[in-house]
Amino acid sequence: MAKNNNQQIKVSFLGGVGEIGKNMNVIECGDDMIIVDFGVAFLNNDSFGIDGVIPDIAYVRQNIKKLRGIFLTHGHEDHIGAIPYYIDELKSVPIYGTALTLGILKRKLEHNAYKCNLKTVAEGDTVSAGCFKVEFIKVCHSMSGACALSISTPAGRVFVTGDFKMDNTPIDKKKTNTSRIAKIGAEGVLLMLGESTNVERPGSSTSEKVVGQNLEKIFKNNPQKRLVLACFASSNYRVQQILWLAKKFGRKVVIVGKSMKSIVDVASGCGALEIPKGTIVESVGKLLPSETVVLATGSQGEPLSALKKLSKGEFNKIDIGEDDVVVLSSSPIPGNEKAVYDVINDLFKKGAKVVYDAMNDIHVSGHAYQDELGLMLTLVHPKYFFPVHGEYRHQFRHAELAKSLGISKRNIIIADIGDSYGVSEKGIRQHASVPSGNVYVDEVMLEDGERVLEDRRSLAEYGILIVICAVDMDAGKIASDVDIVARGVGLSDDDRNAIINSVYDSIISTDFDRADVNDVAKNVKRGVRKLFARERSSFPIIIPIVVEA
Amino acid sequence: MAKNNNQQIKVSFLGGVGEIGKNMNVIECGDDMIIVDFGVAFLNNDSFGIDGVIPDIAYVRQNIKKLRGIFLTHGHEDHIGAIPYYIDELKSVPIYGTALTLGILKRKLEHNAYKCNLKTVAEGDTVSAGCFKVEFIKVCHSMSGACALSISTPAGRVFVTGDFKMDNTPIDKKKTNTSRIAKIGAEGVLLMLGESTNVERPGSSTSEKVVGQNLEKIFKNNPQKRLVLACFASSNYRVQQILWLAKKFGRKVVIVGKSMKSIVDVASGCGALEIPKGTIVESVGKLLPSETVVLATGSQGEPLSALKKLSKGEFNKIDIGEDDVVVLSSSPIPGNEKAVYDVINDLFKKGAKVVYDAMNDIHVSGHAYQDELGLMLTLVHPKYFFPVHGEYRHQFRHAELAKSLGISKRNIIIADIGDSYGVSEKGIRQHASVPSGNVYVDEVMLEDGERVLEDRRSLAEYGILIVICAVDMDAGKIASDVDIVARGVGLSDDDRNAIINSVYDSIISTDFDRADVNDVAKNVKRGVRKLFARERSSFPIIIPIVVEA
Repeated sequence: MAKNNNQQIKVSFLGGVGEIGKNMNVIECGDDMIIVDFGVAFLNNDSFGIDGVIPDIAYVRQNIKKLRGIFLTHGHEDHIGAIPYYIDELKSVPIYGTALTLGILKRKLEHNAYKCNLKTVAEGDTVSAGCFKVEFIKVCHSMSGACALSISTPAGRVFVTGDFKMDNTPIDKKKTNTSRIAKIGAEGVLLMLGESTNVERPGSSTSEKVVGQNLEKIFKNNPQKRLVLACFASSNYRVQQILWLAKKFGRKVVIVGKSMKSIVDVASGCGALEIPKGTIVESVGKLLPSETVVLATGSQGEPLSALKKLSKGEFNKIDIGEDDVVVLSSSPIPGNEKAVYDVINDLFKKGAKVVYDAMNDIHVSGHAYQDELGLMLTLVHPKYFFPVHGEYRHQFRHAELAKSLGISKRNIIIADIGDSYGVSEKGIRQHASVPSGNVYVDEVMLEDGERVLEDRRSLAEYGILIVICAVDMDAGKIASDVDIVARGVGLSDDDRNAIINSVYDSIISTDFDRADVNDVAKNVKRGVRKLFARERSSFPIIIPIVVEA
Repeated sequence: MAKNNNQQIKVSFLGGVGEIGKNMNVIECGDDMIIVDFGVAFLNNDSFGIDGVIPDIAYVRQNIKKLRGIFLTHGHEDHIGAIPYYIDELKSVPIYGTALTLGILKRKLEHNAYKCNLKTVAEGDTVSAGCFKVEFIKVCHSMSGACALSISTPAGRVFVTGDFKMDNTPIDKKKTNTSRIAKIGAEGVLLMLGESTNVERPGSSTSEKVVGQNLEKIFKNNPQKRLVLACFASSNYRVQQILWLAKKFGRKVVIVGKSMKSIVDVASGCGALEIPKGTIVESVGKLLPSETVVLATGSQGEPLSALKKLSKGEFNKIDIGEDDVVVLSSSPIPGNEKAVYDVINDLFKKGAKVVYDAMNDIHVSGHAYQDELGLMLTLVHPKYFFPVHGEYRHQFRHAELAKSLGISKRNIIIADIGDSYGVSEKGIRQHASVPSGNVYVDEVMLEDGERVLEDRRSLAEYGILIVICAVDMDAGKIASDVDIVARGVGLSDDDRNAIINSVYDSIISTDFDRADVNDVAKNVKRGVRKLFARERSSFPIIIPIVVEA
């Protein structure tokens, strides 16, 4: 495509920079706009009751007439998970992804799926959307159907790596398409957005195949035991290897956990998972331990997951004990360690053998390490480079890596959320920030979620005090006892007396000629707040309820 | 000492088993009792405003007349930190520890220290306490003055490892006294309590000296930069090496952070730290970056620490920028990862070079790995063995290790908090549990801390709703508007209307012939609770405030 030197590409970051998760970019050229990825960020298990965070899409709304499509690199939540929350606004927009990606999305959309304009592409396909031509290029990752995107525009080419790794022995034999990427690099890439997740890890990631080899050892060494294997439901390669091993060792597989059942359905339905005939059965029934594999969700210690229930003995048909070997084929996501180790401790207490640490190579990452990131940069050798998907430290180190590989320092930008850049052959320049932010979700989108979360933080740290009294506004004096309700604040009798005295003091010092009942409440609040700040360096939320007698 | 075959040793666990931290054992023989260690457990940075947890000592109180002494293995908080909270009850009891251990304790006791009966011992000393003879045996750890305890009793010998590692090149040249331990083992040990912290790590721990060598490389490679080094204040070996390196490279050391200053004082005062003359200065003054080392607390990202303030630019005299190399000589304690990485991200944003991961061997653990634990078990070869200091998984694996080294399976006990065992040459048997539990502390001991914490958890997860109305009890109807105050709960107008309707419904369905105002409040609460459970699967705390009109 001939480049038009008067045009530029505008790239705006609604997520996925300076943070882990919730990936989303908006790319514009002329009168056309596309969205690349549209994810949710999950907070850890202990996160003030908030399910997740999705991008504020005010900027997309402002430009909705230019929107030609949503392009998804793969089916993980942090790349597709925000779509269901916005589907009513976006249902007419075509959404492009591979079969597994859209299969997973469809499940998430539930009854809304039929309204949407989902367009399945194959690896290697190119889609036109306005002035954009978007090519899907196969990359390896921890799930099938992952693609990098090569986006041709009149102003030049943008290459988005998506999440990827290089794997020379992928279990489906489909390697990252390095020859196509090399060709695109040779043709010239103006701008690359490269994932940075594992930039801190030297060398190369381990092949998924190695996990299979190590799981096979566990099958071999424990012929008489029941095997309970937990992994991410979305890791279809992991599930595939477990199914193959079950077949090979003559075991039946019982799946526990809704999300695991759901993804096995979706993946097998679109050819991303081969279920050996007769391998999966509905329940353990009368199977001997030596004949059984239990495949479960819950490798992150999630409160309602199958593995958690197994560890607590809450499954009536499967009772974990000395006949079990439990394998957590995962590593704890930072923040989930305590939850994961609680599950492991409980499984040990039940007498099971638990295999859980990275030492055993029973889990590998789906993200490229330093050498693989270096190879990608070398193949693509873009003129401009945005390190994305990671905290600042990851972006910073990815930028260092790019510099060491010859990309000019001033052509590398560490972007933040809301940042927007114009890129052309002539140069790169920062535009005014675009509207951006976090929307908190907890089944539904929370109104005023930022404030709700802030309040929950205060409540968690200090608790709440409700101080109730009646006041005779005419006489200018208190007209009842002072009632105190405390939650999350420990109060001795002395503390209660001190609060009551403070309320009396506040009321006595009120100027009743000018004050109304709200002023009295404010004074009461101020008095109690000062008392706690002074005596305890503590800042509970204080709710004064003052009624007129 | 001749053994009396009619006597037994009773060992009770008030802490330090099935958990990390808050180590405390009570050991009895005949009419005598001693306490070994007396620690606090710290929760992580995000722990509902609770500072820490100390053992409930009801059992000690019940037997206070038998108490002959408190023996401290070393000066870390999880071994000494509970003492200040109980000092009024225990001030007449002799407390034994090495100079650094008691020096740190004295600081913590503040103005109460003079009341206490602190008795400094040297490594190698033996103390008599009732029928107990307690020998302090030098072991290596991440701080000086750490000892294992060999406790002779009429019923046999107990060996407590305390926290330890084997280090063949300790920087003070004082190795773990393996020859003495071997001799004690040869004489016969009835029971060993062995720490389990690093039992999951194969091989041996790295010597503290290696950290010094790697820090030296950082000094060498950055001659023009200011070096900012953060580590635990209590790691006096780490601090020592930094002071030596500063001297060697002609730099001055500025200490920031109260606890670092305090421990440097204590450690140098008791000979555990050598301060090269003129090395420490009060402030950076006009020092060039190349002449400066800043030694700071905050390697865990603690909110009020020196490093946190530096990362936020809140120190008026030290401004972090491109002239700085910041080294976190530590690894994040599980649960603190996010706080640590926030600090690292902020330091990078300020332009500093940040060195922070374990890859660089700039931090080593003070706890024995598998091979060292095996060596200890081999040297002591006790008849009975309690793996301690760790979660169940650590105790379990330590038990497996002991079995593999020839200790009989039925002679190994994985104890839980509150467990109590009688041990003699004749056998081991479990006694009735002793009173035990957690006491929450937040500067002071919290009354009813368990419930306060439970409330804070609910508040954090769901928030709180206060529903206020007046009721005419005679007419049996509502006599005001319904006021709703919500904190940590997001409410739309529809939600508010639904709550108001629920309150009306509750009041209408109340049988006013029998009900008093409290019954009305109960009904209101029940109605709103049901509404939230049904509509949102959410369980905010609901406080109904119903006043009589």
